[in-house]
Amino acid sequence: MIIDCHGHYTTAPAAHQAFRDQQIARLKDPSLPPSRPAKISDDEIRESIETNQLKLQRERGADLTLFSPRASAMAHHVGTEATSLEWTRACNDLVKRVVDLYPENFAAVCQLPQSPGVPIDRSIGELERCVLEMGFVGCNLNPDPSGGHWNAPPLVDRHWYPFYEKMVELDVPAMIHVSASCNPNFHATGAHYINADTTAFMQFIEGDLFRDFPTLRFVIPHGGGAVPYHWGRYRGLADMQKRPALAEHVMRNVFFDTCVYHQPGIDLLVRVIDVGNILFGSEMVGAVRGIDPETGHYFDDTKRYVDALDIPAGEKRRIYELNARRVYPRLDAALKRRGM
Amino acid sequence: MIIDCHGHYTTAPAAHQAFRDQQIARLKDPSLPPSRPAKISDDEIRESIETNQLKLQRERGADLTLFSPRASAMAHHVGTEATSLEWTRACNDLVKRVVDLYPENFAAVCQLPQSPGVPIDRSIGELERCVLEMGFVGCNLNPDPSGGHWNAPPLVDRHWYPFYEKMVELDVPAMIHVSASCNPNFHATGAHYINADTTAFMQFIEGDLFRDFPTLRFVIPHGGGAVPYHWGRYRGLADMQKRPALAEHVMRNVFFDTCVYHQPGIDLLVRVIDVGNILFGSEMVGAVRGIDPETGHYFDDTKRYVDALDIPAGEKRRIYELNARRVYPRLDAALKRRGM
Repeated sequence: MIIDCHGHYTTAPAAHQAFRDQQIARLKDPSLPPSRPAKISDDEIRESIETNQLKLQRERGADLTLFSPRASAMAHHVGTEATSLEWTRACNDLVKRVVDLYPENFAAVCQLPQSPGVPIDRSIGELERCVLEMGFVGCNLNPDPSGGHWNAPPLVDRHWYPFYEKMVELDVPAMIHVSASCNPNFHATGAHYINADTTAFMQFIEGDLFRDFPTLRFVIPHGGGAVPYHWGRYRGLADMQKRPALAEHVMRNVFFDTCVYHQPGIDLLVRVIDVGNILFGSEMVGAVRGIDPETGHYFDDTKRYVDALDIPAGEKRRIYELNARRVYPRLDAALKRRGM
Repeated sequence: MIIDCHGHYTTAPAAHQAFRDQQIARLKDPSLPPSRPAKISDDEIRESIETNQLKLQRERGADLTLFSPRASAMAHHVGTEATSLEWTRACNDLVKRVVDLYPENFAAVCQLPQSPGVPIDRSIGELERCVLEMGFVGCNLNPDPSGGHWNAPPLVDRHWYPFYEKMVELDVPAMIHVSASCNPNFHATGAHYINADTTAFMQFIEGDLFRDFPTLRFVIPHGGGAVPYHWGRYRGLADMQKRPALAEHVMRNVFFDTCVYHQPGIDLLVRVIDVGNILFGSEMVGAVRGIDPETGHYFDDTKRYVDALDIPAGEKRRIYELNARRVYPRLDAALKRRGM
């Protein structure tokens, strides 16, 4: 079984974005009528999924995608806490409908209602709603709700602890995922995303978060940002900071996906990172859409790179399936209930 | 000949830092007497160099280091424009003395007097002083003088053009190098440095800087940040943005050093990046000081990794010498004057 741990609903029907546009317009002009989540038919959802994510899943040979709202559209920096909550609920509700329509192909991961300066315990209600009432198996946590100004406390700060306590209680992991950048220095998918991955990992080295939360689990997407390429630097910095070896200090709790869009990158990832810490992911559809002229295949068809790895089949199965089931126990339980 | 393009005077005598401390103290208490650059003897400089950079150069087999002031101490966010200029001149003067004492072992690269919100043309005077009066061959340009708040315009913005015009006129390259981080999210050498490298490269993809300045040259240190590991992503993003291929759009003007502290990282770098764009560098002494328990050698002994590459000797010579002489023509001219 092949589980893609990193897919977004980047192809939601246009009415969903129209709702968001109205919501933002009303922030500027409160005299406008209140926006309401779009009425979207099942057929519209089917159309948006079957011509995109489901088509690619079938063509490329994946079985199930951990599916969350479009990351770049979370835009936690827009509007108020109420704005963020309303938008987040609409996004999560839509993902839930996708999963209900295609329960064998998708499992749901939720966006969180975060806002700059708002305590993180205000995000707990939506996590509980998604996990306990709607069967979601994980969440996306934004370490920089400001969208590129980086003025929240680091992830190892106690600011975040109430949320971590709930994650541990519910036994759900978080993918660390920033959203759009409103800082002109940072291109979203080319700089902000990758920087956030790198930044989060270094914060985990500097802190002692996993001593306080031994069962807390994070997926750092995009192949761990710059970390595997600079694995010697990070091992050396942990040593300079008198931390335990990374295998003990961080890598019991942190996992990288395979959203690295060329063979040499995936080869490096598997060469330096323990296979038990790698989860298959593609980030499709959308971050990089084109065909690689060097290969003739889509950049984001990451399954080709993993398939091409010169490692035993049992190791590939860990990357494709077993690690995801271990990191997302609610997914594992749901699959077992289906006899898988 | 082996040229290390990336070395810092991280071991300057303590009196130099004492001057800086006094300078900062006076920012808080203007009643203190004006600080003056430290009186440091030649013997003190010799001691600081011979027991550190020169010793390591000899032990590891490099011949010449492009030597600049300690990057993390530039701290352009501290104080005013006058603070930054005074500190920068003192730092550059000290590097000049090192080069005068060891002209065969070091060539000078200057720090710039930058400050948040101050136009970049105010940095030109010090560049001219260093290059024209003191024989410096390059400079370190900080894309984020705020120290982790990233509120300057992107490097492709016309804000920076007056400085680029001077770089072109003087025919000197810049290494893009941030300094200390005053943002608690960003560890300096573990996040801020690597993020800046990644960020700068993506800015170059988004802009058309090298159409306006076809001979402008930048070295992106630390192996290009996350870029080589995500080379497929960057090729794909350039394509999505309807830019020319990276070889034409960026890589005529941008070079990566080899400050990547393990063999798999260097192997990847050389596998994906044209050898003509790679300059040997070590970043020593200081970013990562320890010994890698996996190899028994210092993490930052990057020459070992390059030596171990399975590429022809002629290609290694490009990485070790020829590329540096091409990117730093004033270094090449100085070497030729010495018959080298």
